[in-house]
Amino acid sequence: MKTDVQIAQEAKMLPIVEIAKKLDLTEDELELYGKYKAKISLDVYKRLEDKEDGKLVLVTAINPTSAGEGKTTTNVGLSMGLNKIGKKAITTLREPSLGPCFGIKGGAAGGGYAQVVPMEDINLHFTGDIHAITTAHNLLSALLDNHIHQGNKLNIDPRRITWKRVLDMNDRALRKIVIGLGGRGNGVPREDGFDITVASEIMAILCLATSIEDLKERLSKMIVGYTYDNEPVTAGQLDATGSLTLLLKDAIKPNLVQTLENTPAIIHGGPFANIAHGCNSVMATKIALKLADYVVTEAGFGADLGAEKFFNIKCRYANLKPDVTVIVATVRALKNHGGVAKADLGKENMEALAKGFENLEKQIENVQKFGVPAVVAINRFPTDTEDELKYIEDKCKELGVDVVLSEVWAKGGEGGVQLAKKVVELSESGKSNYRPLYDLDMSIREKIETIAKEIYGADGVEFSSKALKEIEKYERIGLDKLPICMAKTQYSLSDNPKLLGRPRGFTITVKEIRASAGAGFLVALTGDIMTMPGLPKVPAANKIDLLPNGEIVGLF
Amino acid sequence: MKTDVQIAQEAKMLPIVEIAKKLDLTEDELELYGKYKAKISLDVYKRLEDKEDGKLVLVTAINPTSAGEGKTTTNVGLSMGLNKIGKKAITTLREPSLGPCFGIKGGAAGGGYAQVVPMEDINLHFTGDIHAITTAHNLLSALLDNHIHQGNKLNIDPRRITWKRVLDMNDRALRKIVIGLGGRGNGVPREDGFDITVASEIMAILCLATSIEDLKERLSKMIVGYTYDNEPVTAGQLDATGSLTLLLKDAIKPNLVQTLENTPAIIHGGPFANIAHGCNSVMATKIALKLADYVVTEAGFGADLGAEKFFNIKCRYANLKPDVTVIVATVRALKNHGGVAKADLGKENMEALAKGFENLEKQIENVQKFGVPAVVAINRFPTDTEDELKYIEDKCKELGVDVVLSEVWAKGGEGGVQLAKKVVELSESGKSNYRPLYDLDMSIREKIETIAKEIYGADGVEFSSKALKEIEKYERIGLDKLPICMAKTQYSLSDNPKLLGRPRGFTITVKEIRASAGAGFLVALTGDIMTMPGLPKVPAANKIDLLPNGEIVGLF
Repeated sequence: MKTDVQIAQEAKMLPIVEIAKKLDLTEDELELYGKYKAKISLDVYKRLEDKEDGKLVLVTAINPTSAGEGKTTTNVGLSMGLNKIGKKAITTLREPSLGPCFGIKGGAAGGGYAQVVPMEDINLHFTGDIHAITTAHNLLSALLDNHIHQGNKLNIDPRRITWKRVLDMNDRALRKIVIGLGGRGNGVPREDGFDITVASEIMAILCLATSIEDLKERLSKMIVGYTYDNEPVTAGQLDATGSLTLLLKDAIKPNLVQTLENTPAIIHGGPFANIAHGCNSVMATKIALKLADYVVTEAGFGADLGAEKFFNIKCRYANLKPDVTVIVATVRALKNHGGVAKADLGKENMEALAKGFENLEKQIENVQKFGVPAVVAINRFPTDTEDELKYIEDKCKELGVDVVLSEVWAKGGEGGVQLAKKVVELSESGKSNYRPLYDLDMSIREKIETIAKEIYGADGVEFSSKALKEIEKYERIGLDKLPICMAKTQYSLSDNPKLLGRPRGFTITVKEIRASAGAGFLVALTGDIMTMPGLPKVPAANKIDLLPNGEIVGLF
Repeated sequence: MKTDVQIAQEAKMLPIVEIAKKLDLTEDELELYGKYKAKISLDVYKRLEDKEDGKLVLVTAINPTSAGEGKTTTNVGLSMGLNKIGKKAITTLREPSLGPCFGIKGGAAGGGYAQVVPMEDINLHFTGDIHAITTAHNLLSALLDNHIHQGNKLNIDPRRITWKRVLDMNDRALRKIVIGLGGRGNGVPREDGFDITVASEIMAILCLATSIEDLKERLSKMIVGYTYDNEPVTAGQLDATGSLTLLLKDAIKPNLVQTLENTPAIIHGGPFANIAHGCNSVMATKIALKLADYVVTEAGFGADLGAEKFFNIKCRYANLKPDVTVIVATVRALKNHGGVAKADLGKENMEALAKGFENLEKQIENVQKFGVPAVVAINRFPTDTEDELKYIEDKCKELGVDVVLSEVWAKGGEGGVQLAKKVVELSESGKSNYRPLYDLDMSIREKIETIAKEIYGADGVEFSSKALKEIEKYERIGLDKLPICMAKTQYSLSDNPKLLGRPRGFTITVKEIRASAGAGFLVALTGDIMTMPGLPKVPAANKIDLLPNGEIVGLF
């Protein structure tokens, strides 16, 4: 069997200028990065502002398991399937981070015959967007520590700094560090730490900003810490806004690539799906909607986190009206939710499937709460039995939800034609009536409680005394009308990663609330959220190689 | 008067494909990064291997002063001057680092009417080479700390780790840090620190590697630290070589841009000129020599550091035969060397000029020791008086060295025609008979003493007990036959930055010797060498901005 990178390296890519031509992009609106990648000017949106938008399809999933669900693969395959049935489609995805790529095997460019290419570039430096964010983020850190070192006019309390540094790397040794050691010339000693770059608020901002002006405005509002009097200090007060904006002038432009079947793909931005909203950039989606009949997009993790934030944060801010939601599940993952260990997932187990199906059922309910019709896509595996597939089909029918088998991993677009047809049918039905789940005018506590009860199925929410103090602070400084970005384990509907399926009778504990004032949301942290991953015992990096003939091995 | 960025933004650039056409590069040998930047495939060298090389011109200078000498400006201007007199010329330069760009005002893309463009891109992320190095370097750090965390099979002594982390940033607070804090899950606590990326050994390697295979070989030899038994541990032993190589697969390709007058410019690599050799990449120079009649290149700092390393390290490793050396000086800088304060440099001062001239005299002698003919280029300033210029001319004549006025800053290529003519005359004279200064078979001490006495004019060298121990170690592990990379203040011929002009009767103190086993040199450190700069009281970053109309302000 061929590996993903082998399939990708054998792909017959079209020059990206030809992909752009299909989308009626002019030469001036394109900036080439080699033959197969290009950045798209934001001016495209201005040119087409009055044009009607295409249909917007969100691909989300059940709570992820170690078995893998294939959300990105389905996303890419669906766009190719739409193309097969004569629809002009674009897939819009997030940019992968380098950290996981060298840590645990696993890229973020789809898989099998449903990939975006050139996958090795997309999974490595791509067009440098993440590097630009790393640089901008760390420039702000350097300016902050330099400000304190040079006299601290703003009266910043070094113990109250919330702005950490970042690297696009899995590096546990940098999680907690002490900086500024070695004497007076090296600045003021204090505790600090590094997050992975995709956890940077600047990544979230890049994904929500709609213009250079908007980017600048948001960057200036970022809170880096607090004074000795507990007043917020912003990037704007450190006179950092202009430099950060300049560093991001190209990163804000969406990137155009293609699928294995030459469907246009726009890959742009990749914010963490826990401490940020986990969707590709607003401008990528908005431009795609002007260029295509169908835009297939994704959101990180399962529907309880990804879809919820997509609807409540991204769609609300960007004024998007999604038409259909595809919920991806696999028989294997559902059995895993039903209590079967990974090694035994290849065997039929109707009882476990029935138990695990409840997770899918809840995610269907969740999506419907936003007024958007759902279709379930079963990402088929060779070990799935007919009885298992039939069970899911019957159960979905009972719930009044369409279900389609997807075979895009093995067959590419051809394997996604059925799903594509269903998506078109639902999109054209006019059934969608998108609405966010909560009003921004509600109190911080009410907003969090609404999400926990309605989406997670919790009985209630407990707030730590730290979180309560923070809520008070945000109310005092006028940040309480922002939407909520939940940071919760992706593995469970609850905040306990071990509670699979559809847990009941639990409460959610909010330990801490952070303000992403520039991105425009409050992050409610439940449990320990890892913002700097570590490397495993044998990192993927140990086996990756570039051979003299140009062949890449060990990547995914 | 227009600023550099204004002049640059008004430039009439040609599409980079047209610049490439002038050089007879094929479409397949080019990878576009937007309309005005491109990477050149290393295959070009293979295609043209049998073609005769063009002439190689090194531009170097007196010891730099705060008055500024204009070495890069002269380099760029000379290449444009050569074009004016009908020679096919290429300027090859180093890539600027982002750190200084946001710290102290000052880019590295020339100045006035002798600049390379698009200067804002070149001075910002350019084609991502430095970001790729940052990533590769820090991946090795992460793998190293992970190795120790996961059981430390290689028996690495955490107190003997020599591989620091890097960022392309001026950030003094990261010079000395403690990492791995916060408990067992966060790795093993140890002292660490960040250097600026251009100080990374990987940058030096990228600049010396002649192919992917050579790159890989050098990366594998990099020493990251020592075991508890004081045996070296390499990147190869950490199984990091393949991943690092893959991360650098594009960074190894030279970058093509142009001057304000559309002369081709290849800008690639930018190693520190103290703890590394300070020259652009070997492949940039070697490819340029196949594509042009004249290649004008540079080396960091004054001739005592830059030219010495260019001749003893780069030319030796790359088998280059330079034809002429241009030594840049200004009347102002010579007066500064003669003891005049910066504020008074605008006034004629024949006495100070005579005293300061000795610095130039010594640098002329230095260049001649390598068998390469020299020409002095006086970078003209409006405040220079006729008497001052005549004095320099007369003194150079006495020494039998040609001297030419250069006015490229104000007049572009037209202001460099005289210099170009002189360079052609000397190149065609067949006078050059390049030879390195020392044999590699000499002992480490002898090599260092030769440089100190012959080039700096020192009476001798003192070695600290630390340095002596290190020499013993390198002899033991077989690294003693490498060339020496001196790390010394750039401001003086001595190791005391305050001794300007031509100091006499001094000794050099070698405090420490580091091994860059992958790059292939031993670094002899004299005095405190800063490998992570800090930001000034008012950083340039505070005034830099990107206006809504796309105009950039505050950059340089």
